[in-house]
Amino acid sequence: MSAQTTQPTFTNTLMPEPAKFTAGQGSFALTSSFTVAAPQFRDERLDAGIGRMLHRLEYQTGVPISKAIQKDSAGASLVIEVKGAGEMVQSVDEDESYSLNVAANGVKLQANTVVGALRGMETLLQLVQVSGSGYILPAVSIEDTPRFRWRGLLIDCGRHFEPVSVIERTLDGMAAVKLNVLHWHLTEDQGFRIESKIYPKLTGMGSDGLYYTQDQAKEVVAYARARGIRVVPEFDMPGHSVSWFVGYPEISSGSGPYQVRREFGISDEAMDPTRDSVYKFLDNFIGEMTTIFPDPYLHIGGDETKGVQWKQNPKIVEFMQKHDLKDPAALQAYFNQHLLKILEKHHRHMIGWDEVLNPALPKDVMIQSWRGEESLGASAKQGYQGILSAPYYLDAMKSAEEHYLADPLPSTSDLTPEQRTLILGGEVCMWGEQINEGTIDSRIWPRTAVIAERFWSPENVRDVDDMYRRLAVVSVRLEAFGLTHITHEDVGLRALTGTKDIDALRVFASVLQPVSFGNRYQGQHTSQLTPLNHLVDAVRPDPPSRHDLEVLVNAFLQNPSQHEAERHQLENIFSSWTAAAPKVQQQVAASPLLAEDATTGRAQQFAQLAQIGSEAVARLAGGNGSQADWKQNSLAVLDAAQKPQGLVRFTVLDPLRKLVEAGQ
Amino acid sequence: MSAQTTQPTFTNTLMPEPAKFTAGQGSFALTSSFTVAAPQFRDERLDAGIGRMLHRLEYQTGVPISKAIQKDSAGASLVIEVKGAGEMVQSVDEDESYSLNVAANGVKLQANTVVGALRGMETLLQLVQVSGSGYILPAVSIEDTPRFRWRGLLIDCGRHFEPVSVIERTLDGMAAVKLNVLHWHLTEDQGFRIESKIYPKLTGMGSDGLYYTQDQAKEVVAYARARGIRVVPEFDMPGHSVSWFVGYPEISSGSGPYQVRREFGISDEAMDPTRDSVYKFLDNFIGEMTTIFPDPYLHIGGDETKGVQWKQNPKIVEFMQKHDLKDPAALQAYFNQHLLKILEKHHRHMIGWDEVLNPALPKDVMIQSWRGEESLGASAKQGYQGILSAPYYLDAMKSAEEHYLADPLPSTSDLTPEQRTLILGGEVCMWGEQINEGTIDSRIWPRTAVIAERFWSPENVRDVDDMYRRLAVVSVRLEAFGLTHITHEDVGLRALTGTKDIDALRVFASVLQPVSFGNRYQGQHTSQLTPLNHLVDAVRPDPPSRHDLEVLVNAFLQNPSQHEAERHQLENIFSSWTAAAPKVQQQVAASPLLAEDATTGRAQQFAQLAQIGSEAVARLAGGNGSQADWKQNSLAVLDAAQKPQGLVRFTVLDPLRKLVEAGQ
Repeated sequence: MSAQTTQPTFTNTLMPEPAKFTAGQGSFALTSSFTVAAPQFRDERLDAGIGRMLHRLEYQTGVPISKAIQKDSAGASLVIEVKGAGEMVQSVDEDESYSLNVAANGVKLQANTVVGALRGMETLLQLVQVSGSGYILPAVSIEDTPRFRWRGLLIDCGRHFEPVSVIERTLDGMAAVKLNVLHWHLTEDQGFRIESKIYPKLTGMGSDGLYYTQDQAKEVVAYARARGIRVVPEFDMPGHSVSWFVGYPEISSGSGPYQVRREFGISDEAMDPTRDSVYKFLDNFIGEMTTIFPDPYLHIGGDETKGVQWKQNPKIVEFMQKHDLKDPAALQAYFNQHLLKILEKHHRHMIGWDEVLNPALPKDVMIQSWRGEESLGASAKQGYQGILSAPYYLDAMKSAEEHYLADPLPSTSDLTPEQRTLILGGEVCMWGEQINEGTIDSRIWPRTAVIAERFWSPENVRDVDDMYRRLAVVSVRLEAFGLTHITHEDVGLRALTGTKDIDALRVFASVLQPVSFGNRYQGQHTSQLTPLNHLVDAVRPDPPSRHDLEVLVNAFLQNPSQHEAERHQLENIFSSWTAAAPKVQQQVAASPLLAEDATTGRAQQFAQLAQIGSEAVARLAGGNGSQADWKQNSLAVLDAAQKPQGLVRFTVLDPLRKLVEAGQ
Repeated sequence: MSAQTTQPTFTNTLMPEPAKFTAGQGSFALTSSFTVAAPQFRDERLDAGIGRMLHRLEYQTGVPISKAIQKDSAGASLVIEVKGAGEMVQSVDEDESYSLNVAANGVKLQANTVVGALRGMETLLQLVQVSGSGYILPAVSIEDTPRFRWRGLLIDCGRHFEPVSVIERTLDGMAAVKLNVLHWHLTEDQGFRIESKIYPKLTGMGSDGLYYTQDQAKEVVAYARARGIRVVPEFDMPGHSVSWFVGYPEISSGSGPYQVRREFGISDEAMDPTRDSVYKFLDNFIGEMTTIFPDPYLHIGGDETKGVQWKQNPKIVEFMQKHDLKDPAALQAYFNQHLLKILEKHHRHMIGWDEVLNPALPKDVMIQSWRGEESLGASAKQGYQGILSAPYYLDAMKSAEEHYLADPLPSTSDLTPEQRTLILGGEVCMWGEQINEGTIDSRIWPRTAVIAERFWSPENVRDVDDMYRRLAVVSVRLEAFGLTHITHEDVGLRALTGTKDIDALRVFASVLQPVSFGNRYQGQHTSQLTPLNHLVDAVRPDPPSRHDLEVLVNAFLQNPSQHEAERHQLENIFSSWTAAAPKVQQQVAASPLLAEDATTGRAQQFAQLAQIGSEAVARLAGGNGSQADWKQNSLAVLDAAQKPQGLVRFTVLDPLRKLVEAGQ
């Protein structure tokens, strides 16, 4: 422990940004004499959290740090004062606030609960920076508390299974950016992923052997709790449930037999809401699941049940007439009313997708909106609590920026103050059609970090350039958990070419991103059995190239003949494309797997873009272009490159267009 | 299925090379109409192996392939004829042979056992190559059987724990290169890693919570068996056993109390061989372990027990005098005789390290030699079976070439034909002091692939250049199992600098490798608690730069004024170093963690090496150097760069020296 008198520049690389923070004078130096004390409340969870924090501090800095936790705060470098354990089962009401003060002579972290302390330790780790020949924590005073209480990430393990190790490293990443709900989508037409000992045929016949044992699921729940994260399981009903019926056709609305569904999209099959035996089954099943998942909420799905199988079953049709249930929506509400009683019996609140919303249901039911802000607002106006998901679908392959600027509850919302309290937060959704364990990390990270900031930080934290600056740092830090969001592109490029010689392809891939879910679905017939080993699976959504080039071009265009540094950088970028292009074309031609999906065309366009970029810069910097129709031709090339073709698209067309437009 | 009439070049990328193979005419084209039949013997293991093979084939090629396994071979693309299941518990005598015939109209794989079929399917996957716009299997006729029956990899999970996911992906890699024994080093002074239900304090107090449950261990055994790999557990006794004593001091030779040992090296503590209660304990424990590990062999360690604690215990000294046991070696032999009875009772063969060898033990005991060929030869001359490990220590950080050329049983050996049959094979050793789950892959792979070839292929397969050519392909293929041996360097460089901007550092790291185990141990005080997050942990042993530059320089030097292609390649390499050097120096200076370990000096030398390389090529190509003492000065720089400094060393000094020496 030693004080520094000169004031280092406080470089803010915090994400999410705290509610309030003020940089101070000086800094606290991290040395091997670092000690930690927890003089007030302590429990196993806090101790384990402190232990992980110290290990990570050691890894970040190489400074060997004692793992002992003192009781006496005298002389300790870091004092962690926690008032109590917090809730036995974490709820939406858990107190996550903390304050963190770094001064030259020590660091103090204060929180009412262990969860608050965990949040504060993540902030502390994000503060570490280099100063001279060592590592420091810059002096700062932070008072922090989340804007929204429900900050979730949905992972769909039904359509493609994800191993426990993937879930756990994702939980590490979630904790690092202060998310607090793992929404675990465990059942789908394409797979039943959680072991039931009462109904063993659910996984025995509906999972292809890919499922979580109850012990594994409990391990995940404990792993999440250790990090202050709730696990809300989803069992999608009455639709999206073909995998249930493979072993238990008797709970379906048809006669079977059924097979695990391989195609995606909306299936016709649904549970039979008219039979008591179905509710008995669900009562047993849900009762069993509550022994694994202690969370007060249980997600019952409820989406996309169109009632096709109901209408095909004369008994169900008769039942609907008899009970005055006019349409499938009414029958689903009937189903949900019964389900609600089962949930109440097992002390669980119900949460479901938009379709669950029905006046027949009490206000206790919570709505998760995949339809959007308007739908969510409408349910709040009817008095239902809700969370927003629509703008946070990662498989839409939008930019971090687009997700970042979507607010669950903008100040412009027309909700009354009372209605506003009903919007608890939001959830990022990682649906499973087009991902597997190799690609999931690069779809979730780093974009989820900026959505986490949207859920945690004040509404007015929305400077996009600053967000991207901080995101670049956070993205690298996430690798320490074993997340593969950066490396997987290289792995994919090597697999596609069978060679380690991927320098040129790396340049090509750096300006490509996957098309949206919908475009891919149209462009490539994908089922659960489709190998996800194409170029589209290797490239990353919103790679740094897009925003980086945009910033650079904007700076250059302010004064093209003056801004030499920017000009040189642009020249270097376009030269590197030009240098890479021939090798890219050659490697694409040599790999049948790469040559598919119209990559051949994209590789040709890449060479053209390089040329246009170089020419535009030269023209703008004063060189005189002789070709009169250069601009028109160049714009035509950009238009062609913008057109749908294959499964990847360019990230750099907008800034290139600006360069061309700015030319003579 | 379609035939090609033109004959493609058969490119041999097989590793290990089969015992016999002959390239044929034409090839078999892989298309979506590919089908597989297994008309003879089938069981769950074979079906699962075929399923994995088809999935990998699909991933390599993107060709969608049906997973159905037909009974009828008529019309099938691939016919797999297996005679029987093979051994219920795989032993050293398992038949692993197979034959594989690829013709234009179909592929046939024949084997006596399922294990043989698994080996053949790995070969089939290695045959896949590009031809025109598609993927093919070139026509070839292969008759294959291993040279050695025991082809192992030791993983030390005692000193640093490795998660199950790491073990399982390592098993995938082992299967791909036809290794057949996982030697699982499960207990050490630094940690007891396997759950005992009879003695719960073994892991309860001796593991820091890092251990395999019995269920997990059984899962690993099943995972290995599915791939034709035996799991031989090692419980190191009577030394290397401090972690046992933390919970059970009563089996030690001292009085305790004990703590998990953090330092490495040889400890004084050992079990007490004089007490019946110790043997009772071991009888119970080993009996319990045989319910998890069905392998006929059980490794009892036995290394490095110097008897310090024995000599300090008057009762043990008295016992030795009474029983005429002259020295610790005699007492250890006494211990092993008792242990042998326990193993016999539980139907296990004993295997141990060199020190176990003692005339007092019967010939049934098998010796694993860490002391080397001579020691192994000596034991064979006494009639003991043995396997060789000494030349295959991965933490020695030797080149793939050095490991490759070390033969367990060279034709020059002076053993008699009968004695030669006692050498069963060898084991690669991945000791755990200087690895963790982040770095282990890059230490094991790809070097282990070439040792696997040494154990499997005929002795005369030893062309180093061809080995490196094939290894480059195999290394990329291994990534498909989730192995991180290539990507981990980038991850490390980003963690060290906190930035994604590592292009220059990548060039620098490409010509660096870790110092040997011994040099690191001297250069950095490492204990179990040392974070393994230095540059030495990021760089890879024997990266491609060493052999690639050697080949290039040799080609160039044949005629420097003529070989323009090589000259250009060399110029490009040295230019890339020169371009990277300033940025490297800047980034090293900015990262305290990088600046440690004398990396600053290495970064300066890197710039000098770049200059020397460029100058040498220019001089040799005809440019005239003006500086008379250039050669002398350059050699002095190379000498300085060769000197021990920090924890990394250059890979390229030998070829650079050749270039300088060849100059005027």
